[in-house]
Amino acid sequence: MGIVVQKYGGSSVADAAGIKRVAQRIVNTKKAGHQVVVVVSAMGDTTDDLIDLANEVSPLPPARELDMLLTAGERMSMAVLAMAIHDLGHEARSFTGSQAGVITDAEHGKAKIIDVTPGRIQTAIDEGAIAIVAGFQGVSQTTKDITTLGRGGSDTTAVALAVALRADVCEIYSDVDGIFTADPRIEPRARKVPRISYEETLEMAAQGAKILHLRCVEYARRYDMPIHVRSSFSEKEGTWVVKSADVAGVAQEGANTMEAAIITGVAHDRSQAKITVVGVPDKPGEAAAIFRAVAEAQINIDMIVQNVSAAATSLTDISFTLPAGEGQTAMTALSRLQETVGFDSLQYDDSVGKVSVVGAGMSSSPGISARFFEALSEAGVNIEMISTSEIRVSVVVAETQVEAAVNAAHAAFDLGSDEIEAVVYGGTGR
Amino acid sequence: MGIVVQKYGGSSVADAAGIKRVAQRIVNTKKAGHQVVVVVSAMGDTTDDLIDLANEVSPLPPARELDMLLTAGERMSMAVLAMAIHDLGHEARSFTGSQAGVITDAEHGKAKIIDVTPGRIQTAIDEGAIAIVAGFQGVSQTTKDITTLGRGGSDTTAVALAVALRADVCEIYSDVDGIFTADPRIEPRARKVPRISYEETLEMAAQGAKILHLRCVEYARRYDMPIHVRSSFSEKEGTWVVKSADVAGVAQEGANTMEAAIITGVAHDRSQAKITVVGVPDKPGEAAAIFRAVAEAQINIDMIVQNVSAAATSLTDISFTLPAGEGQTAMTALSRLQETVGFDSLQYDDSVGKVSVVGAGMSSSPGISARFFEALSEAGVNIEMISTSEIRVSVVVAETQVEAAVNAAHAAFDLGSDEIEAVVYGGTGR
Repeated sequence: MGIVVQKYGGSSVADAAGIKRVAQRIVNTKKAGHQVVVVVSAMGDTTDDLIDLANEVSPLPPARELDMLLTAGERMSMAVLAMAIHDLGHEARSFTGSQAGVITDAEHGKAKIIDVTPGRIQTAIDEGAIAIVAGFQGVSQTTKDITTLGRGGSDTTAVALAVALRADVCEIYSDVDGIFTADPRIEPRARKVPRISYEETLEMAAQGAKILHLRCVEYARRYDMPIHVRSSFSEKEGTWVVKSADVAGVAQEGANTMEAAIITGVAHDRSQAKITVVGVPDKPGEAAAIFRAVAEAQINIDMIVQNVSAAATSLTDISFTLPAGEGQTAMTALSRLQETVGFDSLQYDDSVGKVSVVGAGMSSSPGISARFFEALSEAGVNIEMISTSEIRVSVVVAETQVEAAVNAAHAAFDLGSDEIEAVVYGGTGR
Repeated sequence: MGIVVQKYGGSSVADAAGIKRVAQRIVNTKKAGHQVVVVVSAMGDTTDDLIDLANEVSPLPPARELDMLLTAGERMSMAVLAMAIHDLGHEARSFTGSQAGVITDAEHGKAKIIDVTPGRIQTAIDEGAIAIVAGFQGVSQTTKDITTLGRGGSDTTAVALAVALRADVCEIYSDVDGIFTADPRIEPRARKVPRISYEETLEMAAQGAKILHLRCVEYARRYDMPIHVRSSFSEKEGTWVVKSADVAGVAQEGANTMEAAIITGVAHDRSQAKITVVGVPDKPGEAAAIFRAVAEAQINIDMIVQNVSAAATSLTDISFTLPAGEGQTAMTALSRLQETVGFDSLQYDDSVGKVSVVGAGMSSSPGISARFFEALSEAGVNIEMISTSEIRVSVVVAETQVEAAVNAAHAAFDLGSDEIEAVVYGGTGR
């Protein structure tokens, strides 16, 4: 009898009907012979509503108090979920992050987990109860104040608890069936991936696929905790995120056995913007000055491209991408440099998108970039920037061409299926 | 520099505007040189909304989980209030009941305070911060689970913290100016009482005056903690609840010095119902059987009247009053006794009201009852039941006559003022 940790997101517990549905799933897992620990997010839009309430009172609320406020959200969902389970005839006990032993540093709003001491959770499940734990929150080791882990913190709570409890698996539930070869909303032939490695998942997430948060996948990889990504609205098997060695060569239960795919999926991200610094003197230290200014403004930059300088002028252009939300800050920081660095002008473009192909098989298969770029060319997509890693190739294109680029890449690497329904509903057959 | 504990109810912090107004009051108290600890209830109807949410999911939610859910209410209000104070340039730190050291027994939904260990609160105010504490909640000494103290628990939290911190005063804020000689909505000549004893306040509260909760007054009396009842909507001095010795002979600051009044006020209560057990055999043990059945159904009865039995039949009638909300349960419990006790029938009447005159001077002034009953008679009010204590005389009358009875009693004991406005706005002149 193993321990299963299940995490349900806000969309799964948005209202009373959702909570009852989730309660039934949890009870089914318990009846199947598992000890069950559930991590739950705040209901639906609760967190956003609480942030709105804070902003009504204070334009810049103190972080300690914002954490105190936001943690009310999970407190509500976990208590109500425990009630719904109780109503199905099973004992459930809810625990705050602090009660569950989620110990963090004191960085309010983005606290990191330092330790997990789940003594009360272990006692609860050993006594036959289902334990419900508030996601996204913990308690500071030094100040004893309540902290939040930031967005994606509930997934991380679930994985961290699973590791500390030596669970068999951490199941992450949302409203999608698993991880797909591309976003099914823009690529109708997208196929659910039965297994994927931690590394590929990290690349997919980093490149904009809204599946799992980077932190939680990194945590799972460090401790080799299998994650099962699945939908709370269906009984279908989802996607297993496991270590690379467990991906290749495993016959996928209930799914067609496949050759190891070179490309696992196509990710896209419309949230980026591009800044070009035009006419930078091509001498040592200029680029460093530019990126130091951006770093000091706490901007996370992603791709960087520097043109070969024009021989006649010894001037070059430097372009980089960053989250569009941080564009204004970066432009302000750079403007201050214009005189000292002596560049000509700044250009800002938030009508860009990034499309990436990701796959662990890429490193041993030459020609992936070429095939990708040819496909984009045939589809009439113009490439503005390129960036690569061991298991990924990314391009920046005009935002209007993102969809065409995803479709072209998906087709070029044979990621789709002709039998859409057979594949999508062909999980474990449960 | 003394410690002031202030308690703000849900109506005072119902929305962002209310929270900002309360924040300004708190900051003013701090600026006046006090160390300030604030106890706050949930915003407006939050607690009722959370109960509705629980009932959507479960008809009879487990008490432990209901407490976990309801405590989210104060968590929100206290965090937002701390933000609003921060915005006025003062440091404020919010604390849950557990963090504030409010230790209770394990009776979920109606926990009793066992101990208060306010170390973190003392540290916060010693460091110059304003401490905001969640009312109504604590943590169980034995199970370490979160508990609630039941309705009125926030007032009790405030008094208990004031006692533990050796505060100068516990200020209880609501939307009324203090304790009045009668409910101003039905007695326009009602006058605010500048000072009142714990004992009189207890009788007023027990007789239906919606001012302070019994528990909080009992706690304050036990430890002799002065309570200042006042409005969060005005700067006026309210009513001081103090020990009897401090009521008499003290010149009321800013108000006319008065002789010690015999009667302090008139209370009324429309929430009661009356049950009459008709035709009870007049022999030992019958009344005991009836009230044992009612007690076993957890009904709180108030007044009891047993008629003299009619000589011819040796049958008597027994009437008692109880909260109307418990009427159905009591009638069901009594019906089961009809055969064994052998009474004729049960009568239920929820169209009754109770009117009481309360005053510490009563015990040394004979004739109070007579004057009260004469006044009611002259006003055409029929008395259905009578009950007295050392400092109180109560009557049950038809609900339609409650208002006339209050007005008659108020006039009979000269409680009113001709200069309504002068008195009502004649507080401290601040």
